[in-house]
Amino acid sequence: MAIPLSISWQEGKLTILDQQKLPHVIEYVALETLEDVYDAILSLKVRGAPAIGIAAAYGLALAAVRHDTDELQTFFHLVEKDAAHLGSSRPTAVNLVWALERLTAKVKEAATVEQGKKLLLEEAVRIHEEDEAACRKIGEYGLSLLEGKTRVMTICNAGSIATAKYGTALAPFHLGSELGRQFEVYACETRPVFQGSRLTVWELQQSDVDVTLITDSMAAHTIGAKEIEAIIVGADRIAANGDTANKIGTLNLALLADAYGIPFYVAAPASTFDLSISSGREIPIEERKAEEITHIAGIQIAPEGTKVFNPAFDVTPARLIKAIITEQGAITPGYEKNIPAVLGAYTGKGANS
Amino acid sequence: MAIPLSISWQEGKLTILDQQKLPHVIEYVALETLEDVYDAILSLKVRGAPAIGIAAAYGLALAAVRHDTDELQTFFHLVEKDAAHLGSSRPTAVNLVWALERLTAKVKEAATVEQGKKLLLEEAVRIHEEDEAACRKIGEYGLSLLEGKTRVMTICNAGSIATAKYGTALAPFHLGSELGRQFEVYACETRPVFQGSRLTVWELQQSDVDVTLITDSMAAHTIGAKEIEAIIVGADRIAANGDTANKIGTLNLALLADAYGIPFYVAAPASTFDLSISSGREIPIEERKAEEITHIAGIQIAPEGTKVFNPAFDVTPARLIKAIITEQGAITPGYEKNIPAVLGAYTGKGANS
Repeated sequence: MAIPLSISWQEGKLTILDQQKLPHVIEYVALETLEDVYDAILSLKVRGAPAIGIAAAYGLALAAVRHDTDELQTFFHLVEKDAAHLGSSRPTAVNLVWALERLTAKVKEAATVEQGKKLLLEEAVRIHEEDEAACRKIGEYGLSLLEGKTRVMTICNAGSIATAKYGTALAPFHLGSELGRQFEVYACETRPVFQGSRLTVWELQQSDVDVTLITDSMAAHTIGAKEIEAIIVGADRIAANGDTANKIGTLNLALLADAYGIPFYVAAPASTFDLSISSGREIPIEERKAEEITHIAGIQIAPEGTKVFNPAFDVTPARLIKAIITEQGAITPGYEKNIPAVLGAYTGKGANS
Repeated sequence: MAIPLSISWQEGKLTILDQQKLPHVIEYVALETLEDVYDAILSLKVRGAPAIGIAAAYGLALAAVRHDTDELQTFFHLVEKDAAHLGSSRPTAVNLVWALERLTAKVKEAATVEQGKKLLLEEAVRIHEEDEAACRKIGEYGLSLLEGKTRVMTICNAGSIATAKYGTALAPFHLGSELGRQFEVYACETRPVFQGSRLTVWELQQSDVDVTLITDSMAAHTIGAKEIEAIIVGADRIAANGDTANKIGTLNLALLADAYGIPFYVAAPASTFDLSISSGREIPIEERKAEEITHIAGIQIAPEGTKVFNPAFDVTPARLIKAIITEQGAITPGYEKNIPAVLGAYTGKGANS
């Protein structure tokens, strides 16, 4: 058993875990061309913002190797064209655009086409390695905060397979397993898309973490009955005041943590912060299609004509968050001041900025 | 459109709505024999404690009509035997035993077999009518409490099809529809068994109530985003101090109501109170099989070997309950004193005691 990886780069070959087939089929797919990578992102074989960024970076570098020209400007133009194409595979994924921009900037340092191809590959590897290092750091800071605690609840899959390795909210559990520290994790199934039951349970099983699945509706009873000591979740976007958008159901857990007097932690890399928005009120909440709720695995559950409200995210107010765990350290309340204090030197420079 | 009924008794014929086929197939089944009724209860074609009691009462009366004897003692013996058999169809359903005991006591007043058959039928009809009257009363008291409020959330199916008519938690909405008072109801899907999406949405649609389906994980965000004004739920068992056992997920909603400062109401007939237990701590929580969470409609969602915690109920502490709505009136906090004050004269006498 080992921490599952979603992306592997070995001897010039890119392989990804097909997350669409999890947890029943564990299938690794070799991606050789730009179109292979484009399709893997489009079809959600690769998911999780950091993992998408890494896959796209390798995709761009792999495509560049095949460009048969000695003209540097022609080469730059082809790389830009490839980047634009890859970037259209999931237009809302900020890490995808960020990774591609990092490579298209880097390649400009080349004096020859050969050097340009080499720089692109090196930069893709660097993005991959930096993300793993960032997630490991989040795991270390998370382990410190969870010192003396064993029973922890989570939602969705802020996991290893969504990043280079370790994940964000799940990083303390994976790293704990590596270091011989055992947790009892309670994973909420995460309706409507079941990332908890399909991905988090499988991922933690691979890493020998003791994980128990519950429905989202069981959270309150489970916190009491199983004496849960902390809740830890990932984040999609964090405002300047600490308000955090994350998978729908996160706010439920934050309010329950408050009611039971247990700490509620958010784990996320620096890239998740959007300091251009002052509070969560400015975060738009995407609504998704009704079929996610009325149908399951293609089978209709609810009656014809069912009216549905299906928000994809919710916003947890900063006052409910005990700490935000980043690769730069854990940020504590007083977020307006403490976020720039912790991330200040880092913003715009590091792997995830 | 009309309030759906689960049990119909017309011109000596018993018909039930097959709740196993809802919401996709609306099928009414005629039950003619003791075995028909036994099978309908066993196979969950009839569900909901009051509805099961009513169906069993008719079943016993129908079977009695066919007993071909003039010997009164023989007749009594056959009725007792039938009652024991019917009672074994769902041994944990308290209303089932209660209804059967009421009929076997009533039949003893008969001087002839013919009179006995008549008394049994009359008593079954009386149980049916009393339950409808009790639910209508709950609806009336519920409408008073919800005066001036429009947007209400509920969970599970404490509905018309679980009773003679109107239901308990859903009674104010059905009755409101009859009286021209419109609500906007938000129904939680109620994992793991989906009573919300399968039954409550369908039932309220039939009654022209404006109902919107959400997953249980969306409750907190929905309360805020849709400005929910109250939450109303049913009950499986209420202790002497007001602590209430109900479908898993109810406690989540009670804590959210508290966090948002909106009232949380329990609606239940007097028969739901168990004054022999002083608090919710004495209520055992049944755990159900893992497949309810790992599989949906026979399709496996979670990986092999998934560890599951699947409590069927949770207990909401009385301090979170703004009022308990019964057919005798709404009981307000100070439950140890107020429950006997409201139900005192009633306990052991009425339809649901």
